[in-house]
Amino acid sequence: MKVEIISVGTEILMGNIVNTNAAYLAGECAKLGLVCYYQSVVGDNEERLTAEIKTAVGRSDVVILSGGLGPTEDDLTKETAAKVMGKNLVSDAKQRQDISDYFAKLGRDIPESNWKQAMVPEGSKVLYNPNGTAPGIIISEGNVHLILLPGPPSEMKPMFEDQVIPYLKEVVPDCLYSKTIKVCGIGESKVASILSDIISKQTNPTIATYAKPGEVHLRVTAKAADEEEAKRLVKPVVKEIKNRLGATIYTTREDVTLEQDVVELLTANNLTISTAESCTGGMVSSRIINVPGASDVFKYGFITYSNKAKRKLVGVKKSTLEKYTAVSEQVANEMAKGAAAESKADVAISVTGLAGPGGGTDEIPVGTVFIGCSIKGESKAYKYIFSGNRQRIREQATSAALTVLRKSVLEYYSKVTFSDKGSPISF
Amino acid sequence: MKVEIISVGTEILMGNIVNTNAAYLAGECAKLGLVCYYQSVVGDNEERLTAEIKTAVGRSDVVILSGGLGPTEDDLTKETAAKVMGKNLVSDAKQRQDISDYFAKLGRDIPESNWKQAMVPEGSKVLYNPNGTAPGIIISEGNVHLILLPGPPSEMKPMFEDQVIPYLKEVVPDCLYSKTIKVCGIGESKVASILSDIISKQTNPTIATYAKPGEVHLRVTAKAADEEEAKRLVKPVVKEIKNRLGATIYTTREDVTLEQDVVELLTANNLTISTAESCTGGMVSSRIINVPGASDVFKYGFITYSNKAKRKLVGVKKSTLEKYTAVSEQVANEMAKGAAAESKADVAISVTGLAGPGGGTDEIPVGTVFIGCSIKGESKAYKYIFSGNRQRIREQATSAALTVLRKSVLEYYSKVTFSDKGSPISF
Repeated sequence: MKVEIISVGTEILMGNIVNTNAAYLAGECAKLGLVCYYQSVVGDNEERLTAEIKTAVGRSDVVILSGGLGPTEDDLTKETAAKVMGKNLVSDAKQRQDISDYFAKLGRDIPESNWKQAMVPEGSKVLYNPNGTAPGIIISEGNVHLILLPGPPSEMKPMFEDQVIPYLKEVVPDCLYSKTIKVCGIGESKVASILSDIISKQTNPTIATYAKPGEVHLRVTAKAADEEEAKRLVKPVVKEIKNRLGATIYTTREDVTLEQDVVELLTANNLTISTAESCTGGMVSSRIINVPGASDVFKYGFITYSNKAKRKLVGVKKSTLEKYTAVSEQVANEMAKGAAAESKADVAISVTGLAGPGGGTDEIPVGTVFIGCSIKGESKAYKYIFSGNRQRIREQATSAALTVLRKSVLEYYSKVTFSDKGSPISF
Repeated sequence: MKVEIISVGTEILMGNIVNTNAAYLAGECAKLGLVCYYQSVVGDNEERLTAEIKTAVGRSDVVILSGGLGPTEDDLTKETAAKVMGKNLVSDAKQRQDISDYFAKLGRDIPESNWKQAMVPEGSKVLYNPNGTAPGIIISEGNVHLILLPGPPSEMKPMFEDQVIPYLKEVVPDCLYSKTIKVCGIGESKVASILSDIISKQTNPTIATYAKPGEVHLRVTAKAADEEEAKRLVKPVVKEIKNRLGATIYTTREDVTLEQDVVELLTANNLTISTAESCTGGMVSSRIINVPGASDVFKYGFITYSNKAKRKLVGVKKSTLEKYTAVSEQVANEMAKGAAAESKADVAISVTGLAGPGGGTDEIPVGTVFIGCSIKGESKAYKYIFSGNRQRIREQATSAALTVLRKSVLEYYSKVTFSDKGSPISF
């Protein structure tokens, strides 16, 4: 089955934003076994939008549009799609209620324009939107499925995952089954070289690798007549990958993030954690606290960006700062030990580094980051040198901190041995 | 003049990479005054590529293709474009020499397939490539300019900047000038209603609004014979928008973020800041510290997710927590005052809220967030109710905290008055 992706929005045509929606939708459709021959971008213009939709429904089975569902007069996607498909717009009672509730919760009057978002093409499936006021729409006509989604990724992605994927799974004839394997602490090219022989001979199942900041995700996908058979094809390949990558695999559950895995690991071992962050400035803590239930494990977080904060909040010695500078193994260790002692947490993780753009020297170039982990009063620190801009260096340092934390807890409490392949410093 | 951008590559259609080339090319063309109505993506397939190029040259003045100029048989862009434009391919002596030199420098033999890259459509302008072996091509025929560029951004961008921009400047008659206005603390529909009369009668300049998390960006764009004239058209519109939106505008500089504006505001007033974060768990601090130079203003950051941390680190009273619960105006105020006192910072900002998914009640639904700001020992707290998932609520709370911080400092130190329109709680 063929899918076509149309992104609607002048800001994409003007180059103000990068079209990440199209990449996301294309990737998800590929996983479902849909073949994408065309993607296009068009502005909020009725005539051109009409022509694009007509062309797309004439040559593809599934057409996905994102954008142009907002409350303003500029937003024409729904009205234009309904017209092309010969549908009238009718008011949807649940959507009206959703809009009322949304604004009541905000304590604000409902702008008249927002009622436009309660109108839906007759006979269509309405995709209610828990993250905004624009509902998505699916219009099915014969063998064509026209799917309209809101433009903001924070609304579009959950809607696609929760409502469109289940719909498409019903529609796509072949059954596709995927298993995701998430790895931290080794880079994509290293993963590829460890698995090169099985990747090169892949046909069914296929193995795809995706580089994420500080992580690599692998997706093993088999196609078969039914799910049972597809699962049977995937199983031995996943087993072999697990064999080779060992403890660097932190999860094989699709929806589990590295921080969630870390929180679960701490919870399972009855451990509490504190943090001391310099250049990451709260990013490590923020990822841990994004896990529901983190309150059971997270004790104190110290953001010690200045030297004074390092001394006052987590007891780094003045002499250590003077002798070794703030970006050093010694300071990382004192930060971690200090955070643990101050908070009486079982484990503490520290980050100190130079995120740039200025301040680099030959000895300590921009991108140098030390990560310390203290367990039961003992601390060990790891050195990394990351590349990229300030934000990118900080993101990599954050993932590295979670990786060091995971490895340290596994080694100390679960007696897991990491092979060379799984060293946390081989990013 | 109309420009159309065609990206060639299966990896884009599969969602393996994000199409940053299209955003780059669109942005650069907009600056040159070219109007982009269409972007599309197509794979390395002769039939579909032929159809796309034919459609594009039929409706646009400038058509830019990127990708598919490599040495392999898969790479069809040049051959297909030449065929559509009725041109034979001929060998280019300088390009042959470039290929020889390139491989000589690498100390490698020249693969036979690379000679394909020395063939160019007859009568075309060859864009020699100092960063790779694929030359770019411009085919001009009547009023149509078909421009072929290599796919890798490291080759495409310098070629575009050094060779295509000078070419297009000769070709494009009009000039376009844009000014961006960034607003925080009010939602997109409110901005639209405040500006509705000037937005509705817009022709030249045009006004576009873009919703960002916790912010709205406006772009005023004028078209004229020269830049001077375009600037003259933009000026009164920007002035009128500034008049109406007042202090909710935090910048009119294209590359300045809200956190950067806040750091500049603190620096200009010689103020230091500390934070006390509960549900945002470091996100506010992390955004502030992402600004180079934040070390001059940022004192201590406390991540006080648990009640115990709120008491021990920033001195929230046990009785206050018991009487009002952690998600309350009173606790937000005590957190802010405590963070300021503990760190001796001039200003402190606090966030305490319920990000969910569990724990909501009728009185305190999921999404309830209190933000406190302490200045000189006095604190004021604001209540928000955000929607969306846990991460989305935390992101909105983070933007709201920066907005409250900015407003409080402006009111106290710069004696700026916010109209009702600019209240920090009308998100």
